[in-house]
Order: sequence, then C-alpha cells, then structure tokens
Amino acid sequence: MSASVRTRMRPDQRREQLLAIGRGMLADRGLEELSIDLLAVEAGVSKGLLYHYFPNKQAFHTAVVRSAAEDLFAMTAPREPMDPREQLRASMAAYVDYVEHHLTGYLSLVRAASGGNEELRGVYEEGRAALVDRVFESVGTEGAHELGLTGSPAQRLAASGWSAMCERVTLEWASQRPRSLTREQLLDYLAGSLPALLAVAP
Amino acid sequence: MSASVRTRMRPDQRREQLLAIGRGMLADRGLEELSIDLLAVEAGVSKGLLYHYFPNKQAFHTAVVRSAAEDLFAMTAPREPMDPREQLRASMAAYVDYVEHHLTGYLSLVRAASGGNEELRGVYEEGRAALVDRVFESVGTEGAHELGLTGSPAQRLAASGWSAMCERVTLEWASQRPRSLTREQLLDYLAGSLPALLAVAP
Repeated sequence: MSASVRTRMRPDQRREQLLAIGRGMLADRGLEELSIDLLAVEAGVSKGLLYHYFPNKQAFHTAVVRSAAEDLFAMTAPREPMDPREQLRASMAAYVDYVEHHLTGYLSLVRAASGGNEELRGVYEEGRAALVDRVFESVGTEGAHELGLTGSPAQRLAASGWSAMCERVTLEWASQRPRSLTREQLLDYLAGSLPALLAVAP
Repeated sequence: MSASVRTRMRPDQRREQLLAIGRGMLADRGLEELSIDLLAVEAGVSKGLLYHYFPNKQAFHTAVVRSAAEDLFAMTAPREPMDPREQLRASMAAYVDYVEHHLTGYLSLVRAASGGNEELRGVYEEGRAALVDRVFESVGTEGAHELGLTGSPAQRLAASGWSAMCERVTLEWASQRPRSLTREQLLDYLAGSLPALLAVAP
C-alpha cells in the first residue's frame, strides 16, 4: 500500500485498519507481545500516528480485545432460517474456529482478563455476558421451547456455567496433540451439552 | 498463646500453624493482601522467624495456595460407604461450603492463577487435575457404571469442562444477592450435571 493511499484514509477507517491488524497479530502472539512498535511495523506507519489513536499500550490492548470480542459476537450470531439446534451448533462452530485460529492470543486474553487487569476483565465479562444473554433471546419462540429454554434465573446461571465449560473444553481440545475428539464430535458435544444442562437445572 | 508455648513447637508444626493462619486469612482477604507483616501480627511472632519459613511474599503465597488446594482435596474426598451419586453430591457440598467461606480469597486465587503468575498457575492446575482425576478413580466399579463413567479421553475432556462449570456457577451463586437457587438446588444441579454431560460426550 503506498503512502498516498494510506493518507487518504479517514480517521475511522484508519482506526479500524489498526484494530484489524491488532486482531490479526493475536493469532500467534500473546497480548503481552503486542506493542505499539510492532503495530507500527505491521501497519507501515509512524509511531507518532499510532499514538494519535492509542495513547498507550494499555489503551491499544483494551481496544483490540474489545474489537475482537465484537468480532466473535458477530461471527457466532445465529443464522436464519435454521432449526435451533442447528443454530446453536453453527454458533459453536464459529467459536471453535475462532479459538483454534487465535489460540495463543485467546489464551493470553483469557489469562489477562482473569488476572489483575480490571479494564480487560470488564471487556471480557461484558463479551461473555452478551454471548450468554443471546442464548435466551429466542425465549418464547417454538425453537426455544424445543431446546427447553425458559430464561429463568436458574437457567441463566446454568448457561453461564456452560459458557465456562465451552471455553475450557475448546481451549484444551485446541491444545491437544493428538486430539481426543474430531471437530465434528467436539461440536456435537458443545451443542448437545446446553440442552442436557438445562434439563437438569432446577 | 504464650512465648514459652510457641517456642516449644517443632519446625514442621510451626510451618503448619503458619499455613493454617494463611489459609484462614484468605477467608475474607485477597491473595494480594496477604503479607509477611500481616502474618507476623496474626501469628504473634517476629518477621525474622517468618523469613526462616518463607524467604519472600511469593513463596508464602505459593505455600498457602498449595496447602489450601490440599485442604480442599481432602475435604471433598468421597466418603464410604455411599452410593456414587450421594458421594458426588457430598463432594460438591464440601466444595460449595469451602468456596462460600473463602469467597474473597478463592476469587483472588482463581484470578492470580489464571493471570500472569506461572507458579501459582501450576499449583492451581495441579489441584484441578487431581480433582478431575478423582472423578475417574472408581472406573470399573458398579457405582462408576451407574454414573456412566468409562474414563475415555472424551469423558476426561468433558469432566475437565464440568469442573470449570462448577467453579463458575459456584462463584456466581456465592456472589448473588438474593441467590437464584437454594444451596440444595445448587448441589442437585452440580451433582446432576456430571452424569448429564457424560451422557452427551462422544
């Protein structure tokens, strides 16, 4: 990309470009390795310009993680028209693929979010809550009835636990060599476990 | 306790006493608040003596967390003679009570272990693996058959996910005001969810 093309970008386009590069860097790097220096090299722009968008490394990390969470939320959105079990399986497929293709970054993100960083934890918790809430968006429809979804407080607690289970199982599976399950078996399990858990929720 | 009684302690007894005080401090304090200074006050001994047992704060934290993990493992041990479902429920009851009575400390421990501290993460992962392995100790018995336990790699992955689910659900439940489930309902759910998940594991 030539300098003249770059300078024609609007600020919102430039910011989106930088975040996209940041998200891509997370594929095979941990959050702790993402620096403004590295971003400048990858984006082919000056550090001075980057500091215009992200005042410091922490602000850059938070923005990248927030934008990755939005990406993940969009990628795992239910696709119409589909039977509710198929929808759930398609969402889990998008989730598993995301984790598999961003394993180093995702692991470092989970660790940073669970660790001392309050701001990252906030972004992570929000993203997780949005994914859990979406499970219950269909309450009242025939599909929700078929899955046994009522949206009761007990079911919401169970679904929150289910999301922690999915994260653990997917991260462990993605790190296994050789893998104990095929991708199809993993997806069957993740999608099948939600109705199984709701069935035993009080 | 008088100084003369204290000085009669053997080194292993003294160390155990200090760890017990450390574990107790975790009930309503986070790991980051546990200092050698505070331990000296609570134990009523000099800081000099403490540095004999724990060269620095990090070593003290690791020792306290390791000893808390051993405590939790012992407390949640299956009790004979009991039907396997009752055993599982009794283990979960001990786990829930432990988390409830050490909520601040347990939360801070999970965060420290998931965060950047490699040594604490090691202790935490080991403790978790031991709890998951124990689920499969009974494989081959009639009780294990009744729960559907085979010990296959797929089941071990599912049980690891189940343990993450139990941790999340218990921590969320213990933090709720008002609580969405009674303690009995929570225990029914946690104990009932393992066979439910094993039933859908490939």
